[in-house]
Amino acid sequence: MLFDSLTIVGVGLIGGSIGKAIRRRALCRNVIGVGRDPASLKAAIASEAIDSFTLDLAEGARNAEFIVVCTPVDKIALQVLQAAKVCKANAIITDAGSTKANIVRDVEGRLPEGVRFVGSHPLAGSEKRGPENASAELFERRITVITKTQRTDPRALEQVSAFWQAIGSDVRVLDPESHDRALALTSHLPHLVAASLAGIIPESVRPFAASGFRDTTRIASGDPALWAAIFRENALAMTAALQRYSEQVDRFRRAILDDDEATLIELLSTGKQVRDALGS
Amino acid sequence: MLFDSLTIVGVGLIGGSIGKAIRRRALCRNVIGVGRDPASLKAAIASEAIDSFTLDLAEGARNAEFIVVCTPVDKIALQVLQAAKVCKANAIITDAGSTKANIVRDVEGRLPEGVRFVGSHPLAGSEKRGPENASAELFERRITVITKTQRTDPRALEQVSAFWQAIGSDVRVLDPESHDRALALTSHLPHLVAASLAGIIPESVRPFAASGFRDTTRIASGDPALWAAIFRENALAMTAALQRYSEQVDRFRRAILDDDEATLIELLSTGKQVRDALGS
Repeated sequence: MLFDSLTIVGVGLIGGSIGKAIRRRALCRNVIGVGRDPASLKAAIASEAIDSFTLDLAEGARNAEFIVVCTPVDKIALQVLQAAKVCKANAIITDAGSTKANIVRDVEGRLPEGVRFVGSHPLAGSEKRGPENASAELFERRITVITKTQRTDPRALEQVSAFWQAIGSDVRVLDPESHDRALALTSHLPHLVAASLAGIIPESVRPFAASGFRDTTRIASGDPALWAAIFRENALAMTAALQRYSEQVDRFRRAILDDDEATLIELLSTGKQVRDALGS
Repeated sequence: MLFDSLTIVGVGLIGGSIGKAIRRRALCRNVIGVGRDPASLKAAIASEAIDSFTLDLAEGARNAEFIVVCTPVDKIALQVLQAAKVCKANAIITDAGSTKANIVRDVEGRLPEGVRFVGSHPLAGSEKRGPENASAELFERRITVITKTQRTDPRALEQVSAFWQAIGSDVRVLDPESHDRALALTSHLPHLVAASLAGIIPESVRPFAASGFRDTTRIASGDPALWAAIFRENALAMTAALQRYSEQVDRFRRAILDDDEATLIELLSTGKQVRDALGS
């Protein structure tokens, strides 16, 4: 057992999958879900994601040793601080948000004595959402980034790492800003690009959107409110990533205007080399 | 039977799949492959894509009633004209190129009396290539666009349509310019975007490229020379599509800079709506 009691705040795709993964492995005696929708939380009990639930964050956090906040990125910092006020004195709190710098900065220095926070981001998202898509295997062989700053407690870092590893994840430690710059390039910018591509397709040409278009725009089906919050929270790294990306697109544009075959092949080869290296 | 003899010029993924689909359905007595690589053409015979092969286009085209040119887009027009010089007087020639306006314009008005050309584009590409990936089912339930201009012979249009339908494809008729504008948006621009996204990812952040990034950039694994030719052949429609796309990306950029949640949600919702309508 990792700990006696775990509280999951936000029992959606990620929170529900954490609950299922923890319970399947019997890593915790008691998993409490905190949410807003009783019907959804009852379904989470039925699907063995959580043992019990409450709609009251303070109640759910009160006796927890370990709390994971899995709500949208613009809610996380405040909910971490609310949970920290009432949880056990030596509790550990982490999250599952797609951005890290703002959250970690807002939380650090505001925690009661003894309570420790380590930021986390499991790279296991999906265009699907909701506890009905939750899976005990969601984190297996997926990377989870956990954040380290000068204020991070080394023992808490170890325990949060052990938590994600216990449910199958491969843990990497980054500082919050490096996380945000990396994910701006590998996740947030691709989402913006997919939404832009899909957004400009007039109805008349949709029949001609084949498998390549479907792959390229698949993530555009993600939840707009969740992604708007991610773009806003990671605005700084996003604008830098956009700048870099726009320069590359502009190289293509100029090569097309110049009918410059050599540059087109070079630009396409650079992309192919990176993509081939990732594997299917 | 559709016809006695079919000649496939270029026996790669598309040409090989046409041969397999035709032979599996016994739609033609004799399928001749024309190519450059004897080893690859022998393998195409072994995998039942073609009955025989030649390295000489004139020899392969001489007795054909129906010729399909499946080479890269910058080679097609010239090879159609070369085949037209030697084929049967009432032969029909089509192609499988991803661009249409340049090819159709270069071919029309240059054909010998009686020989007819109808442009085709089966939307059945893949980042894979080569006859080893060919499949008799490649065209099933996929759209094939065939082109119609003022010079198109109506009977030839019917026969080319029947050809693609016979191997499972759903045929749509467009003028070449409308095809190129539509495919610039649904296929060529997404390829440029995928290559740009992949091309700017430094090695250090590659471990953080998860399933969303893989989907969005999958087509960047396509062959650089083939795609450079497509971008050059479709330069006009590509630059128009790029302009439209860049304006959408810029709307996102400004909304991020302005911390404008409403506009972000609106832009993301527009993309989601289109993508959801396409289905998985």
